[in-house]
Amino acid sequence: MANAMLLITVLLSFLILPFSAVALTQDFCVANLSRSDTPAGYPCKALVSADDFYYNGLADAGNTNNIFKATFTPATVSQFPGVNGLGISAARVDIGVGGVVPLHTHPAATELIFVTQGTIVAAFISSDSNTVYTKTLYKGDIMVFPQGLFHYQYNIGASPAVLLVAFSGPNPGLQITVLALFANNLPSNIVQKVSFLDDAQVQKYKSMFNGTA
Amino acid sequence: MANAMLLITVLLSFLILPFSAVALTQDFCVANLSRSDTPAGYPCKALVSADDFYYNGLADAGNTNNIFKATFTPATVSQFPGVNGLGISAARVDIGVGGVVPLHTHPAATELIFVTQGTIVAAFISSDSNTVYTKTLYKGDIMVFPQGLFHYQYNIGASPAVLLVAFSGPNPGLQITVLALFANNLPSNIVQKVSFLDDAQVQKYKSMFNGTA
Amino acid sequence: MANAMLLITVLLSFLILPFSAVALTQDFCVANLSRSDTPAGYPCKALVSADDFYYNGLADAGNTNNIFKATFTPATVSQFPGVNGLGISAARVDIGVGGVVPLHTHPAATELIFVTQGTIVAAFISSDSNTVYTKTLYKGDIMVFPQGLFHYQYNIGASPAVLLVAFSGPNPGLQITVLALFANNLPSNIVQKVSFLDDAQVQKYKSMFNGTA
Amino acid sequence: MANAMLLITVLLSFLILPFSAVALTQDFCVANLSRSDTPAGYPCKALVSADDFYYNGLADAGNTNNIFKATFTPATVSQFPGVNGLGISAARVDIGVGGVVPLHTHPAATELIFVTQGTIVAAFISSDSNTVYTKTLYKGDIMVFPQGLFHYQYNIGASPAVLLVAFSGPNPGLQITVLALFANNLPSNIVQKVSFLDDAQVQKYKSMFNGTA
Amino acid sequence: MANAMLLITVLLSFLILPFSAVALTQDFCVANLSRSDTPAGYPCKALVSADDFYYNGLADAGNTNNIFKATFTPATVSQFPGVNGLGISAARVDIGVGGVVPLHTHPAATELIFVTQGTIVAAFISSDSNTVYTKTLYKGDIMVFPQGLFHYQYNIGASPAVLLVAFSGPNPGLQITVLALFANNLPSNIVQKVSFLDDAQVQKYKSMFNGTA
Amino acid sequence: MANAMLLITVLLSFLILPFSAVALTQDFCVANLSRSDTPAGYPCKALVSADDFYYNGLADAGNTNNIFKATFTPATVSQFPGVNGLGISAARVDIGVGGVVPLHTHPAATELIFVTQGTIVAAFISSDSNTVYTKTLYKGDIMVFPQGLFHYQYNIGASPAVLLVAFSGPNPGLQITVLALFANNLPSNIVQKVSFLDDAQVQKYKSMFNGTA
Repeated sequence: MANAMLLITVLLSFLILPFSAVALTQDFCVANLSRSDTPAGYPCKALVSADDFYYNGLADAGNTNNIFKATFTPATVSQFPGVNGLGISAARVDIGVGGVVPLHTHPAATELIFVTQGTIVAAFISSDSNTVYTKTLYKGDIMVFPQGLFHYQYNIGASPAVLLVAFSGPNPGLQITVLALFANNLPSNIVQKVSFLDDAQVQKYKSMFNGTA
Repeated sequence: MANAMLLITVLLSFLILPFSAVALTQDFCVANLSRSDTPAGYPCKALVSADDFYYNGLADAGNTNNIFKATFTPATVSQFPGVNGLGISAARVDIGVGGVVPLHTHPAATELIFVTQGTIVAAFISSDSNTVYTKTLYKGDIMVFPQGLFHYQYNIGASPAVLLVAFSGPNPGLQITVLALFANNLPSNIVQKVSFLDDAQVQKYKSMFNGTA
Repeated sequence: MANAMLLITVLLSFLILPFSAVALTQDFCVANLSRSDTPAGYPCKALVSADDFYYNGLADAGNTNNIFKATFTPATVSQFPGVNGLGISAARVDIGVGGVVPLHTHPAATELIFVTQGTIVAAFISSDSNTVYTKTLYKGDIMVFPQGLFHYQYNIGASPAVLLVAFSGPNPGLQITVLALFANNLPSNIVQKVSFLDDAQVQKYKSMFNGTA
Repeated sequence: MANAMLLITVLLSFLILPFSAVALTQDFCVANLSRSDTPAGYPCKALVSADDFYYNGLADAGNTNNIFKATFTPATVSQFPGVNGLGISAARVDIGVGGVVPLHTHPAATELIFVTQGTIVAAFISSDSNTVYTKTLYKGDIMVFPQGLFHYQYNIGASPAVLLVAFSGPNPGLQITVLALFANNLPSNIVQKVSFLDDAQVQKYKSMFNGTA
Repeated sequence: MANAMLLITVLLSFLILPFSAVALTQDFCVANLSRSDTPAGYPCKALVSADDFYYNGLADAGNTNNIFKATFTPATVSQFPGVNGLGISAARVDIGVGGVVPLHTHPAATELIFVTQGTIVAAFISSDSNTVYTKTLYKGDIMVFPQGLFHYQYNIGASPAVLLVAFSGPNPGLQITVLALFANNLPSNIVQKVSFLDDAQVQKYKSMFNGTA
Repeated sequence: MANAMLLITVLLSFLILPFSAVALTQDFCVANLSRSDTPAGYPCKALVSADDFYYNGLADAGNTNNIFKATFTPATVSQFPGVNGLGISAARVDIGVGGVVPLHTHPAATELIFVTQGTIVAAFISSDSNTVYTKTLYKGDIMVFPQGLFHYQYNIGASPAVLLVAFSGPNPGLQITVLALFANNLPSNIVQKVSFLDDAQVQKYKSMFNGTA
């Protein structure tokens, strides 16, 4: 009994003193989204629970009733603050029959996809030689799209396709060429100048993507 | 016609001279696995095709007929050299009914899982306070396990579970506690010393995991 | 005299033994371009001279007699191996009267320009909201274009414009949208699918930029 | 005299204008521990003195009167805020006669030890093949333990051993296997499931390390 | 008409729902200089305009009427907050006839210079062998000075020289040897001790650079 | 018995198939010093043993019979290839009575010292304001010197001082001001120009440090 007490005393002193005194505060850094971002990510939230490392927003199919017949559902730091500072994030892409994720880049991350449903064509284009690296992907296949390079995916099957997506950073960015050029107030004559498009094509695009000017 | 010829000439000179002259050689760096690794990854392969960025080795379920009733099938740089230098890689985990991915760490990457089949419990343990962050995950859920921290997953459902896994690096490492301690020639008395295990338990483990000494 | 001899002896022993023994081999790592690249850059060249850290290929105006009336002259690692591993590189852009550097990205670096001649408009487009950040720049002005985002520059003056360019990496990449889509063998129907362009426009582009298929 | 005044004037203008105008604010970034951490470390303290870069908490031997007969005394960012952002920190380990630093990892740093007193055995275990790299170390020896890998040290001498420790980051973390599994409220049946331990062993551990549940 | 309405509806739903919902907040991170710096740079400013990415403070020649006949005009994060987090910054150096930028280092960045006017000698010194890498540079030449190494530049022409400078980081630091040793309160006897200078020389320096003690 | 055989079979299949199949090749990357360095460090050695992670070259005092009465004994990647790629290295500094480690920088690492013997003064100088941060250090004290900044240490005690040194990188570099300026062939008139030293002082230094020209 005295022994047990002694053990408890020793243990308490041990647990409190030698190793527990190590206030190692950054096993992780769940984003406090209400604070200003920094170049390395958001400041860390003070109180954290298991729910911060979990997200269920990718469970259901996104709505593909839009011009692309496709939807990108992100689980990046804004939706899933647990990935802050951890060099990774996720997304789900649903591509309806005939749908397409048009030419785009992620300025801040490499993309890796898992095809979990359907059949797609996916490709990226190198910057050094404009070479197109293209593959037909079936359920179970994976493919990687190097950071910052143009890429696209489209459904070639008779049923919806689903991609689970991982990014090599918590905030990959998504820059879709036609939206960058047309879904804003960039004047038509400048669009023409920097893209070599005909005026009629620009007007059509502006109308398609709700652009002004 | 002369105009067209002129245009072609100008274009050729343009395409060859001003921008095409930019020999920007590292849009990507597919691993040449026959060369020595470096701290940043493998030297780049010279000739590359779309197949280098694609992998189909995760399409099928792994064999779970083993002591863990679970299998880890990697798509890291050794199997999928296209991810070299890109800060990402993948894997598939199959967990049979009653199976478990026992306590382990990835020394060199954060892990993010997509549950695509089944129901599991997953958890990681913080280093600062030994807090267990645990969640029950259903099909469609995702969870993140911060780099280097102990974690585990086990199947609590009545059917096999499948996890698609992304890592925040091309070569995450996998250190399973019971294999690190017992599936090698570490002498039993040293195992006891550094783990506080009883001799009988160590012998049992050594036998379970095929260890020697 | 004995003193002087002693001093020399001490110095020699000092110079050879204590500090000179420090074989610190990486003040810099000039690229050996004949060896395979790695994810962190080229292996280091063994014999190095001051010429490796110097480049005069940006001294003269580039030829702007092309469809863009503009030329990009790089001093990245391929031309200027001294920048290997140093997180920086350079270029010169000449934009003739009426010329344009069309919509493009650098997948692997931020760009900073110094306008040393002429008057231009320069802009980049954010990925989060497709916002256009645009400025008219005069001689002496500088502007920064964040990594991976679409940007463009065009001459609005009555004389040629010259930009000196610095990149935040030794191998920034250059991906020009119209060349990525049209100066290769990407089939026209796929271009249409991923860009929403009309067939006529695609054919015109293919012809302009020497594309096939 | 006029000359001296002129010199002073010139110097003042010089010191104030050309070079002193360079408000280069980050030679260092001493942690402001009262602010939220970020993924790159703590925000910088405004007023700094030489004391911020100095620490005397490792001068004295720690108390080894505990179950491990060993103590880890950290000088990481929490105790020594001057190392914030500088990629390094320190610690002292005292190991009594017969003592052990049991199997553990540092999730966020490589460890390098200087043996300044005593004789120990130190080892780490690779993740790829569960190979044990083990050395007997004497006073004056150094050894490195790669980031994230299991390692341990124990005293084999007749007198206390002292290790001075450097880490490759300001906040290395410390995850001791037996504390991660037993010094918390992780239910015994789950411990058994993920560690393959017998129930009796788990109960004994729980009692040793003050665990609940 | 109904069609057009439908299109607009679809587009709005598209623009709002699938892709616009991506709150990707870090295409860039303009420094909020009123907030504390962090090891990775300043927290991001909330409201940003094109002006944040532009700077005109390098357009005019600096005043070289000082002891060095040279001036360094920075466009680093303090003056040009748009470069925060982007791995690059700029400066302008004016060197009058006979002027010199004396021996100095940038602790936190590699430097790349464009000579836009005049003729200079520039050199850096390696740390491993004290080798001097020296070049005479003419208008149009560029040179790179690896991070942290001693370097200097001086005008050898008959007219002022101008250098446009890029740094591989937003906050390179500038440590000028003679100012570090003499333009402060470092006691003369300590200066002598750590520099091996004669007392008379130290006094002269102290006076030249306005040092005390 | 059949059971045991089954277990062995299962185990072998398990050990060989599911987890052991993970060829994770970079727990560490011991330098192959006979190969060219890269910007991230040396290529990895193929065959590795515990000896690669151990070094005993810092056990004995260095020879301080030189002009500085001090010696720097490195355990950086050239001497201790196990630290390659691991973000850390070590050294030992012996400072005799009256000795000094003169003004110097490490271009590529922060330095952290443990004073294990003697009493010293140590200081570093900030680049932004030339502020001297100075401390008297006793046995057991530690101090950190931020990357790239000028610093020095000198013995103020009556007995030799010993510093154990850790660096935040495997190859920190060491640039000693007086050796960089004088222990080479830099012509005296240029030394004067870039350092503002008197000719007599330069000649004296050249002679002291064995310089030519």
